[in-house]
Amino acid sequence: MDIKRILEEVKNGVLSVDEAANKLKTLPFDDLGYALVDHHRQLRNGCPEVIYCTGKTTSQLKGIVKNLIEVGNTNILATRANEKMAQAVSEIYPEAEWNPSARTIVIKRRPIEKCGKGKILVVTAGTSDIPVADEAIVTAKFLGNEVEHLFDVGVAGIHRLLAKLDIIISANVIIVIAGMEGALPSVIGGLTDKPVIAVPTSVGYGASFGGITALLSMLNSCANGVSIVNIDNGFGAAYIANSINKVS
Amino acid sequence: MDIKRILEEVKNGVLSVDEAANKLKTLPFDDLGYALVDHHRQLRNGCPEVIYCTGKTTSQLKGIVKNLIEVGNTNILATRANEKMAQAVSEIYPEAEWNPSARTIVIKRRPIEKCGKGKILVVTAGTSDIPVADEAIVTAKFLGNEVEHLFDVGVAGIHRLLAKLDIIISANVIIVIAGMEGALPSVIGGLTDKPVIAVPTSVGYGASFGGITALLSMLNSCANGVSIVNIDNGFGAAYIANSINKVS
Amino acid sequence: MDIKRILEEVKNGVLSVDEAANKLKTLPFDDLGYALVDHHRQLRNGCPEVIYCTGKTTSQLKGIVKNLIEVGNTNILATRANEKMAQAVSEIYPEAEWNPSARTIVIKRRPIEKCGKGKILVVTAGTSDIPVADEAIVTAKFLGNEVEHLFDVGVAGIHRLLAKLDIIISANVIIVIAGMEGALPSVIGGLTDKPVIAVPTSVGYGASFGGITALLSMLNSCANGVSIVNIDNGFGAAYIANSINKVS
Amino acid sequence: MDIKRILEEVKNGVLSVDEAANKLKTLPFDDLGYALVDHHRQLRNGCPEVIYCTGKTTSQLKGIVKNLIEVGNTNILATRANEKMAQAVSEIYPEAEWNPSARTIVIKRRPIEKCGKGKILVVTAGTSDIPVADEAIVTAKFLGNEVEHLFDVGVAGIHRLLAKLDIIISANVIIVIAGMEGALPSVIGGLTDKPVIAVPTSVGYGASFGGITALLSMLNSCANGVSIVNIDNGFGAAYIANSINKVS
Amino acid sequence: MDIKRILEEVKNGVLSVDEAANKLKTLPFDDLGYALVDHHRQLRNGCPEVIYCTGKTTSQLKGIVKNLIEVGNTNILATRANEKMAQAVSEIYPEAEWNPSARTIVIKRRPIEKCGKGKILVVTAGTSDIPVADEAIVTAKFLGNEVEHLFDVGVAGIHRLLAKLDIIISANVIIVIAGMEGALPSVIGGLTDKPVIAVPTSVGYGASFGGITALLSMLNSCANGVSIVNIDNGFGAAYIANSINKVS
Amino acid sequence: MDIKRILEEVKNGVLSVDEAANKLKTLPFDDLGYALVDHHRQLRNGCPEVIYCTGKTTSQLKGIVKNLIEVGNTNILATRANEKMAQAVSEIYPEAEWNPSARTIVIKRRPIEKCGKGKILVVTAGTSDIPVADEAIVTAKFLGNEVEHLFDVGVAGIHRLLAKLDIIISANVIIVIAGMEGALPSVIGGLTDKPVIAVPTSVGYGASFGGITALLSMLNSCANGVSIVNIDNGFGAAYIANSINKVS
Amino acid sequence: MDIKRILEEVKNGVLSVDEAANKLKTLPFDDLGYALVDHHRQLRNGCPEVIYCTGKTTSQLKGIVKNLIEVGNTNILATRANEKMAQAVSEIYPEAEWNPSARTIVIKRRPIEKCGKGKILVVTAGTSDIPVADEAIVTAKFLGNEVEHLFDVGVAGIHRLLAKLDIIISANVIIVIAGMEGALPSVIGGLTDKPVIAVPTSVGYGASFGGITALLSMLNSCANGVSIVNIDNGFGAAYIANSINKVS
Amino acid sequence: MDIKRILEEVKNGVLSVDEAANKLKTLPFDDLGYALVDHHRQLRNGCPEVIYCTGKTTSQLKGIVKNLIEVGNTNILATRANEKMAQAVSEIYPEAEWNPSARTIVIKRRPIEKCGKGKILVVTAGTSDIPVADEAIVTAKFLGNEVEHLFDVGVAGIHRLLAKLDIIISANVIIVIAGMEGALPSVIGGLTDKPVIAVPTSVGYGASFGGITALLSMLNSCANGVSIVNIDNGFGAAYIANSINKVS
Repeated sequence: MDIKRILEEVKNGVLSVDEAANKLKTLPFDDLGYALVDHHRQLRNGCPEVIYCTGKTTSQLKGIVKNLIEVGNTNILATRANEKMAQAVSEIYPEAEWNPSARTIVIKRRPIEKCGKGKILVVTAGTSDIPVADEAIVTAKFLGNEVEHLFDVGVAGIHRLLAKLDIIISANVIIVIAGMEGALPSVIGGLTDKPVIAVPTSVGYGASFGGITALLSMLNSCANGVSIVNIDNGFGAAYIANSINKVS
Repeated sequence: MDIKRILEEVKNGVLSVDEAANKLKTLPFDDLGYALVDHHRQLRNGCPEVIYCTGKTTSQLKGIVKNLIEVGNTNILATRANEKMAQAVSEIYPEAEWNPSARTIVIKRRPIEKCGKGKILVVTAGTSDIPVADEAIVTAKFLGNEVEHLFDVGVAGIHRLLAKLDIIISANVIIVIAGMEGALPSVIGGLTDKPVIAVPTSVGYGASFGGITALLSMLNSCANGVSIVNIDNGFGAAYIANSINKVS
Repeated sequence: MDIKRILEEVKNGVLSVDEAANKLKTLPFDDLGYALVDHHRQLRNGCPEVIYCTGKTTSQLKGIVKNLIEVGNTNILATRANEKMAQAVSEIYPEAEWNPSARTIVIKRRPIEKCGKGKILVVTAGTSDIPVADEAIVTAKFLGNEVEHLFDVGVAGIHRLLAKLDIIISANVIIVIAGMEGALPSVIGGLTDKPVIAVPTSVGYGASFGGITALLSMLNSCANGVSIVNIDNGFGAAYIANSINKVS
Repeated sequence: MDIKRILEEVKNGVLSVDEAANKLKTLPFDDLGYALVDHHRQLRNGCPEVIYCTGKTTSQLKGIVKNLIEVGNTNILATRANEKMAQAVSEIYPEAEWNPSARTIVIKRRPIEKCGKGKILVVTAGTSDIPVADEAIVTAKFLGNEVEHLFDVGVAGIHRLLAKLDIIISANVIIVIAGMEGALPSVIGGLTDKPVIAVPTSVGYGASFGGITALLSMLNSCANGVSIVNIDNGFGAAYIANSINKVS
Repeated sequence: MDIKRILEEVKNGVLSVDEAANKLKTLPFDDLGYALVDHHRQLRNGCPEVIYCTGKTTSQLKGIVKNLIEVGNTNILATRANEKMAQAVSEIYPEAEWNPSARTIVIKRRPIEKCGKGKILVVTAGTSDIPVADEAIVTAKFLGNEVEHLFDVGVAGIHRLLAKLDIIISANVIIVIAGMEGALPSVIGGLTDKPVIAVPTSVGYGASFGGITALLSMLNSCANGVSIVNIDNGFGAAYIANSINKVS
Repeated sequence: MDIKRILEEVKNGVLSVDEAANKLKTLPFDDLGYALVDHHRQLRNGCPEVIYCTGKTTSQLKGIVKNLIEVGNTNILATRANEKMAQAVSEIYPEAEWNPSARTIVIKRRPIEKCGKGKILVVTAGTSDIPVADEAIVTAKFLGNEVEHLFDVGVAGIHRLLAKLDIIISANVIIVIAGMEGALPSVIGGLTDKPVIAVPTSVGYGASFGGITALLSMLNSCANGVSIVNIDNGFGAAYIANSINKVS
Repeated sequence: MDIKRILEEVKNGVLSVDEAANKLKTLPFDDLGYALVDHHRQLRNGCPEVIYCTGKTTSQLKGIVKNLIEVGNTNILATRANEKMAQAVSEIYPEAEWNPSARTIVIKRRPIEKCGKGKILVVTAGTSDIPVADEAIVTAKFLGNEVEHLFDVGVAGIHRLLAKLDIIISANVIIVIAGMEGALPSVIGGLTDKPVIAVPTSVGYGASFGGITALLSMLNSCANGVSIVNIDNGFGAAYIANSINKVS
Repeated sequence: MDIKRILEEVKNGVLSVDEAANKLKTLPFDDLGYALVDHHRQLRNGCPEVIYCTGKTTSQLKGIVKNLIEVGNTNILATRANEKMAQAVSEIYPEAEWNPSARTIVIKRRPIEKCGKGKILVVTAGTSDIPVADEAIVTAKFLGNEVEHLFDVGVAGIHRLLAKLDIIISANVIIVIAGMEGALPSVIGGLTDKPVIAVPTSVGYGASFGGITALLSMLNSCANGVSIVNIDNGFGAAYIANSINKVS
């Protein structure tokens, strides 16, 4: 029995006010919770869908993509996708764009609306950090942002970074990606007053501990305005940059 | 505007069914959420109150106790309470029982009802583990359980433990408390088919790392039937033992 | 020389009381210890057998299963079994049920008796946690419990969880399985007063450290009533849930 | 072309002053450096000053405050200040506002301009997290933002949080502060599409490791849109929230 | 009812053999386990008693010492004893010897019998390791061994060590105590074919992590014949050295 | 007195050659150094050789074995050898004994002399620990000791262990090998007064961290008389047991 | 005084070119930046190029080498290069020298100039450390240094090391490479007054944690004059040794 | 040829004393050992003495200083000395210079000879790093070096650092001291081709872990030419810088 029917029975005198109040109380939570649900539905309406591929079989991925295509008209982004997955998806949707560096699959079924106010800048310390940057770039563009990038401007050659100062200053949000000692966000954080999202990468060896050193380094940044996401989480950084860029 | 009033207006024709359904949707969550709240209230009705004292000032503690005494008729347990706190509470409620080893304050305002089916047994490996055991014992009794204990039956003197086999076998739930290498739960887990709750303690030095070694050891127990709580968490173990003892 | 013979010789005057007492003392421990052994035998009589396959060769596994089948009439559960192992076992016992997700082999030689009072509920935060859940489900059923499950109700979409509140409240014991930040047991622990067994999983990347983050998170749960087992230990959680469910 | 040659061409009238200035700007790095300096000067002009007190003696602090008061007309915020420091500062500037919970000293010499577009919401899981929240609140207000707060809405009592859904949804940026298992940012991150800044706190005991567990938990949040700062870093979170709130 | 009485009743025909066998089975374990207990009693007969003082109150310590003095005629060693404890013990037994560096109290009530075959050598890398060495020396002598020592012969001045080669070669068991990088056991292990027991100490700062570095270093010794005990565990090392020295 | 003066006195007949040689030996360090070299030569003369294979190529191994066979008449033990290595060695020395579980190759060129006084007992907690035990057994026998073993007597089935008490008590040195929670050495250490050498193994999963948990557990053993070697170091334990067994 | 005004004064003859150039140099920061650029150019002019191969594809590597060969006349060193990479490079430059142990490729296009004053000595504790040593040796020679080496002189056989004392004392800088317990730098640091650069290696097993133990051990060296680089970083050590050797 | 034979040939006049002495020197190891001893004596002759005060009592320190003053004419440096120690030393030697920030005591009994070729530069990232820097400065000067310093030039304000580029470039060796994220050595390492010694400090909070983050960061520096010492080890860094500065 749903809410409207209860209300109608109250209107018709079939149920007393107290009986109706009791019935409402005994309805399972979800029926009461629809404000919550609506809120979510509203949020998600026409909103692009994201699939995290790690730990999914190729056939599971295929099933999910198929279902999303049938159900709605949204754009779809799959992250952490390997080549086999990309091939599988292309069998369903031949126009799917596979980016082997970013490990992303993008299915564009309607044009991406520009939504952020300013530019998102993606910076890397080294060339080995580029795959994580690519994940961030694909994601940020997919979510409707204008994106620029600066690669291989690590702190051991500070002049390379300073030569690009104008690009840094003109960005609205900056994603800084670095492995090894993870020092780049501190330097960039000191050069801008815009939000900096730092992404540690698993680039390095020995005491880099698969990105832990970069992570700790970033958490202890002496620059204000730097917040951090998980190791190699290019997608997450772009998602946050997008939410910041849209705040305005 | 609350639910009953909405229902009455529906009944009186002041509101149409659709208008009422919309109004219900725009009510803040809590008004919709009362099933949830009721459920909680029901759970907590006449239920003893617990105060975790760490990080509270003496005057904050006093305020909370005062309020609880005025509002209801429940029994009150304060954990991790130091002597100063005990004294402060006794100014409000002179019959409050202060246990300096367990660091607990118990305020009994109505008799504790026995509720568990069987006995909860609290075992320690060493004498230094007794304060944690005392916290567990006070808590388990406060929650209405029959409690027995065995102290200082660590695995390096296995005959001391085996001499008490009958007590171990007769318990319904067993809380095993150990620091250092934390081996006792494995041995006891092998002697009973009842649930064993293991509590690592910060007893030890050097590579005991404040209880981490005991914690890891317990998590890797080769005995089935052993689950673990946080280091020194005698209260938590007793709370779980109580919930198990009541399941029946 | 066994106890009865010693007693008979005492009766017959062949041995004096002191000689007999001495002889008893010199018997190897096990002969004295049979109360202990009996207790175990009693526990294990007709009890299902469990084989942990990791680190065993296929031929070792085959040998153990063969032996168990010849010796008794018990049901057998093999955990952490790969496909090759399953095939090997099916050569001995073709009706053996292989569950590739749970990595379990079940050999049912007599009907499983229902033994627990209530339902065991198995909940996962994400879809990647399902293999651990499957191990728990297979185990709990194998041990004679009624089992229900809720998959993919992680805390980042709290409405999905709350929509199932009735299922949560009706369970007798709840196993909550989560990787990444491991937050689900805290939320569920706040919604029920039944024992919650939390299983951290190795699902995640970067700073999830193969399940350590989820493990630590669960150990520090702000909800009472939550105890923890080792990472990915679905079997252990089900074993404990079973022992709790049988306590009554 | 080097500097001297440019200067000579200016001297000889080959280059106009403007052309020369432009040429200097297009030289690699160094001339862009002016922008750097200017940019910094611009950033800092009339901008509030912040002093991090840890590791400074009372007399050092006094000296710095004195100097800042003499040199300019900016507002001053001192963080991590103890009572003795507050007293010392009040000797120089009696209207300095000392907040013992936030451990902040605020010196307002000109009215704080509102600068952010929306509201910053500061949420805590427990009452012990309030001092960190207070640091964030004082900072965010000092930087010109409208601030709201929700305290003690931890995930083990999820209805307390859901009852405040409207406040959460209406915020522009949310700072979520939690110790122990640090699960709150994941839940809130699932309820909003605005940026969430998570602050782990050192609240907890045993395996909370002074905030490491909460930190790791937050880094592994299954909710998108959550970035993290260092343990207990209320100031840093507010600084970032301010920079996000101003982006627009 | 004890074993002898059962045997007597069998002899007297009061109990049948079967009844007696059953009664024996139902006796609590300890009565069956006396071989075990005897073994222990035998081991401990006339054996010196050791009290670990950490975590005991002065009055608890006093009580234990009093009891041991009244009950038997054994020598007593108390370890990790502070000055207050030493004073308390001296009130009971004025001849008690307090060693403030070793933090030991020795009560000699009968002459210590020499029992080991050879000499135990105690070596330290630095002067800061001496308190741990003193605990080992006092313990080894207390247990009846001849003890020699070499202090401050760390590996950075290898000639100091090599100048004492004859002392090293003539020892039967060697206890090597070192903090910081813990390299000494490797060098000594290469100079002797006798068992070496390595004791890491908490001496050092920064990345010595309270002895963890020395501990790990010793565990990875490239010299054969080196086994390790817990950080600062001078007593344990001496106890093992004694058991080795007596093996012969 | 320095070298030249000694030489001069030899020349002048003041010192005999023997007196001079003795005096040289008593000079600090350097002259003792001969002793060192001699001592080593003595130690190694006719002494079995050991090759640690990890990190060596098959051809390097072959070269070393060839050389050892040509140079002397010693027995040879190669540890951590894989099948390919075994095959390579058998090409040089067809009688070489390859033990695939222990991963050892033994080349016996002269009979092994019994040298230890008593028996070395090798005990494992589980069946997965057997390869490490086998390495210890092969090594201890190779070095001339009588060896006995007890497998699969872990603490969760304490009666299995106690049933073998006589074997435990009769050993001269005991090597105890355990993974997971590493509790067995504590129990055995409490049952014997002989030296116990504990070997943590990498057996386990999740929070066993490749043997770290067992290692820490053993380091914190509440039983006296337990010393520890590196994870999976069966060879090292046997080497130490041998040196203890020979001490007498 | 800003740039334009300086330029105008040059134009008007108020400032000479030199005066203006000087004034520009005294402006904060930016003009000093020229020096920076120049300095870098100077540094890099004719300077050998180094390529770190890890994380680069074979074709990327080929592209970089091609470009370097076309652009200048420098020598080229590629580190962490596998065989496939070596083959690829040899297709472009057949004289490239591939060192499979050091994993280096050297392209010599002009003779290497000797530049350091003294000898660099490279020492290893074991034979498994040789690949790291080879990387250091190739690098140090490539940079123009005279290099000597001592392999397999670990501390467990201290006489092997002392026998080479003259070689140690005659070196200008010493690189000491060790895995396991990493004790060698402490011993060598005590034998020389020249700078010692310690390189921990990932050689070892169990509690060597892939080189962490050696790293920590070296950081805590009781010998003065020892500084450390990352695990397995033979290149880095040689680079530093070279910079020290050139300081003079 | 062995010792006795050499002696006999001396006796027989076959060898002269000098020839014999030479022959002894060419014997393996032991005779080189003299060189060792001499070398050390030579090294230490007239050489400044250093006392590490941590873990020494005031009276022990006093004793050592007294002894050093009586025995020789060397200068003395005491590190990690507190005020009480300084006072005690001044009772013996009133001219002793106590530096409370560096925690050093310097006793100058003869003028310090300048011995290094160039300047040692000491740089800190923050003001809280100054005490470590002061220890380095006092040490470097005490050992005879010219020292310059740059304080508070952390990477978040990169222009402050670049403004001092000339000072950086003119130094012969650079000690870089930083806590928090420890990024400064990477930036400076990129600006100079001289050796950089990085000192992590325990400055920071939360995830700085008492200097571990800075330490790891420095070990993973992307700049070549950076080597590292233990946390807060200003003395060690200066000692190394001195040995480098003297190499020339």
